[in-house]
Amino acid sequence: MQKEVSQAVIKRLPRYYRYLEHLRNNGISKVSSGKIAEMLDITASQVRQDFANFGGFGQQGYGYDVEKLLKEFSSIIGLDCNHNLIIIGAGNMGRALSGYTGFESDGFAVKALFDIEDREPVNGIPVLAIDKLEDYLLKNDIDIAVITTQGNIAHEIACLVVELGVKSIWNFAPVDLEVSSDVVVENISMSESLYILSYKTKQSRLLKESLTD
Amino acid sequence: MQKEVSQAVIKRLPRYYRYLEHLRNNGISKVSSGKIAEMLDITASQVRQDFANFGGFGQQGYGYDVEKLLKEFSSIIGLDCNHNLIIIGAGNMGRALSGYTGFESDGFAVKALFDIEDREPVNGIPVLAIDKLEDYLLKNDIDIAVITTQGNIAHEIACLVVELGVKSIWNFAPVDLEVSSDVVVENISMSESLYILSYKTKQSRLLKESLTD
Repeated sequence: MQKEVSQAVIKRLPRYYRYLEHLRNNGISKVSSGKIAEMLDITASQVRQDFANFGGFGQQGYGYDVEKLLKEFSSIIGLDCNHNLIIIGAGNMGRALSGYTGFESDGFAVKALFDIEDREPVNGIPVLAIDKLEDYLLKNDIDIAVITTQGNIAHEIACLVVELGVKSIWNFAPVDLEVSSDVVVENISMSESLYILSYKTKQSRLLKESLTD
Repeated sequence: MQKEVSQAVIKRLPRYYRYLEHLRNNGISKVSSGKIAEMLDITASQVRQDFANFGGFGQQGYGYDVEKLLKEFSSIIGLDCNHNLIIIGAGNMGRALSGYTGFESDGFAVKALFDIEDREPVNGIPVLAIDKLEDYLLKNDIDIAVITTQGNIAHEIACLVVELGVKSIWNFAPVDLEVSSDVVVENISMSESLYILSYKTKQSRLLKESLTD
């Protein structure tokens, strides 16, 4: 049985992947744990410990094979298979996401957007009335529901898609979704991030003012 | 001198604010640390410890005054003053952010977008050529630069705005920006979040398959 992987390690997976992709794109075929550590601003021993969670990936003495490691991480993250997404909420954020070409190359395909009523397609993707959602989910194999609605209806929408069998939610609404524990939820909280930026900006200004007084 | 506030507390500030706003909007004028704790899924003692970082906010025995607490948090986060933003990169994400009305009510105003060349205004906001950025920043008081460019030029853009006096960066590009320590950077990493969602989705599916075998 695979051992439980810590949240800290999970959070580093995308960064490993991104760095390895960068190396591959620059024609580099071998990399040491020390070099990876340097790029991620952690220790080489941490890198080796992280890798041990997934079997270790072979001879560190000679350095890791970039192409092989990239394939391993691609499989670990699940980028080796296709994911079908729907976006619920065809406002600015939903439309922006539907046109975000970065997803496609990683195997994430936006299949439909949903809004209050049928609308013109966006970026070639159909925009359907929300009352067609149930029928749509019965007929189509959707892995991930992206919620970009206002906060006040996000929870209701989440419950609905979960009831209809969707097991993963990417939540952009500014609320904490409470769904059953077998549903995976990842949040992108724009306003929280902006508030933290605002707080730190104010602190930094106050500090500067106190130093120049 | 104010004591150093931990990252964990800073991360909770937006959640306190959001919850207090919710209470105020629902006409609730008093709230206990216990109730706040419940909503944030932490302990009441943690709430009181967090509040102690900012002076405590008065009599907990009678519960906190919601309106007063909201004003305190508004000031702590810096929402009691206006912030001028520019967005660099007028692609899908930049355009979506420029039209995000949620910011305005919190005092964040998008003043201009920048792209390779002058374009039609978006949501009533001018889109200027990037070579006008220097002149623009000399003539306008901008607090926050939002970077929504491709990863490969994000670092160069960050260095440029910092050189021109901007002290806060909201980074949507999938790279780690290395800027001087007096510059505040907050990252929104869409692809990292999606990769983590993908990883957890795969794990959850593998677990289910192993249980049904």
